[in-house]
Amino acid sequence: MRVVYYSVDQDHARWIPGLQAALPQAEVSLWAPGAPPADYAVVWKPPQQLLDEQPGLKALFNTGAGVDALLQLRLPAGLPVIRLDDAGMSVQMAEYVCHAVIRHFREFDGYEADMAHGKWSFRKPRSRLDYPVGILGLGVLGERVARSVAQFDFPVNGWSRSPKTLPGVQSFAGADQLDAFLAASRIVVCLLPLTPDTRDLLNAQRLARIRPGGYVINVARGAHVVDADLLAALDSGHLAGATLDVFRTEPLPAGHPFWQHPRITVTPHTSARTLRSESIAQIAGKIGALQRGEPVAGKVDPSRGY
Amino acid sequence: MRVVYYSVDQDHARWIPGLQAALPQAEVSLWAPGAPPADYAVVWKPPQQLLDEQPGLKALFNTGAGVDALLQLRLPAGLPVIRLDDAGMSVQMAEYVCHAVIRHFREFDGYEADMAHGKWSFRKPRSRLDYPVGILGLGVLGERVARSVAQFDFPVNGWSRSPKTLPGVQSFAGADQLDAFLAASRIVVCLLPLTPDTRDLLNAQRLARIRPGGYVINVARGAHVVDADLLAALDSGHLAGATLDVFRTEPLPAGHPFWQHPRITVTPHTSARTLRSESIAQIAGKIGALQRGEPVAGKVDPSRGY
Repeated sequence: MRVVYYSVDQDHARWIPGLQAALPQAEVSLWAPGAPPADYAVVWKPPQQLLDEQPGLKALFNTGAGVDALLQLRLPAGLPVIRLDDAGMSVQMAEYVCHAVIRHFREFDGYEADMAHGKWSFRKPRSRLDYPVGILGLGVLGERVARSVAQFDFPVNGWSRSPKTLPGVQSFAGADQLDAFLAASRIVVCLLPLTPDTRDLLNAQRLARIRPGGYVINVARGAHVVDADLLAALDSGHLAGATLDVFRTEPLPAGHPFWQHPRITVTPHTSARTLRSESIAQIAGKIGALQRGEPVAGKVDPSRGY
Repeated sequence: MRVVYYSVDQDHARWIPGLQAALPQAEVSLWAPGAPPADYAVVWKPPQQLLDEQPGLKALFNTGAGVDALLQLRLPAGLPVIRLDDAGMSVQMAEYVCHAVIRHFREFDGYEADMAHGKWSFRKPRSRLDYPVGILGLGVLGERVARSVAQFDFPVNGWSRSPKTLPGVQSFAGADQLDAFLAASRIVVCLLPLTPDTRDLLNAQRLARIRPGGYVINVARGAHVVDADLLAALDSGHLAGATLDVFRTEPLPAGHPFWQHPRITVTPHTSARTLRSESIAQIAGKIGALQRGEPVAGKVDPSRGY
């Protein structure tokens, strides 16, 4: 069995020995143009040439949670594309989102600014009933985030393509219920896959549906949010702030207004990183299952986009 | 039945109508010198005179979680002193501690500093196995904090007077196991009651036992930490930082070195506030139970100090 690895991040020096150790029966190598036919490919943002030269792949593994970049390519018909289920990402996402939610709700940013000026301040405690948190997207990551946020007794709403039943989460589903979801939420967390249906989802009209004094946390893809519309909703006072980890262009270009906006917190796409050892163990397990003819979780439906 | 209220915070304008509404059969009034004998007193940092003039009280309710100030007074022998069980404080404490733990572990403070300079930075992800969190004190608040921290998959240690069994928490108990607890912990959260046994607990010797690169979060009382020893442990590099919500003198005096220390985050005793409506409902419920001769939770043992 032959496995090829390719990542635009050029981090093969650790991935290839790791995959080789986890798959001792396989021959694992870095993909390069002209490489011999492989059974499996493990990739992050591969070139079209890899797909064109490897028509005999039994499956393609994507090492990130989002497959939007991969689905821009021409994939061989019927090639199974498999996302990682979690691989340590969901707990990181829960941490990131809970930190941002708590920081805003408890005004810790304001307290820190006061303290930097030596001011012992008092702010009236807010009621968490006034801060319902809405999670856009209830996949593996969204479910975990919803559960973590609910643990702090916030009202939690979830929006997904089809209705889901999660303890402590008010479910909204489909395009018809998106406005109702937004109107019921004050802190909106975007954890959607990026597809033609979700691109530009948080535009002026949708941002206006969020409860006044709203807050946006985007940990999915930059293209879910219309930058100018978000800035306008902040500047009008409708939104109180935003925490953004993802951007239409990354790194966020110098001079972009998000950098210096006083009510936007910017982080460098760090909300949930792929953890190599967990990912390798999971990929090796799935290759073993596929070899034995067993089903594996995480198969992407290209028509759905995730 | 007569109930008197007194708080050093002078917030009786909302408490007294609230207690009156919750206890329609009672006569609720502000305590002042010479007030007629009452059945119950609801207090925060009362003067000795209140206790001296009210020898017939059936019970005294403390509106904060800590009774250290109250136990400095001469209390009538046998007077039941009752703390609030929770009244919305434990979720606030869990929020505060999780925010501080995540902020330190994920280096969000460092990212924000980078971003303020327009720097799109990369930090190698840390392993949560290297950041075991130790909770000093496993009362109502400590248990809730331990549960919330464990939910983010950190290893969690707990230290209490007697051994406790909590899911996901490694239990240490008594003075004999304090050093082992500290050596097993890198982030140490103080949630102890302030008693003669716990005063100055986090001194130079104990801080030195915490794992190198340690982090201290104090949400109990300022007197649990020896200020100069904490500063020395930070400046030697043994500790990476601290988040402090409580201080020996509050407000923290101008010029105190904690204010401007680059690795100390100071907040103005805001980790868990008494929420009036929850507290009033709980006190009313407990007065009802006492009137019916039923037992109530939260009785303080003055010999133990909490």
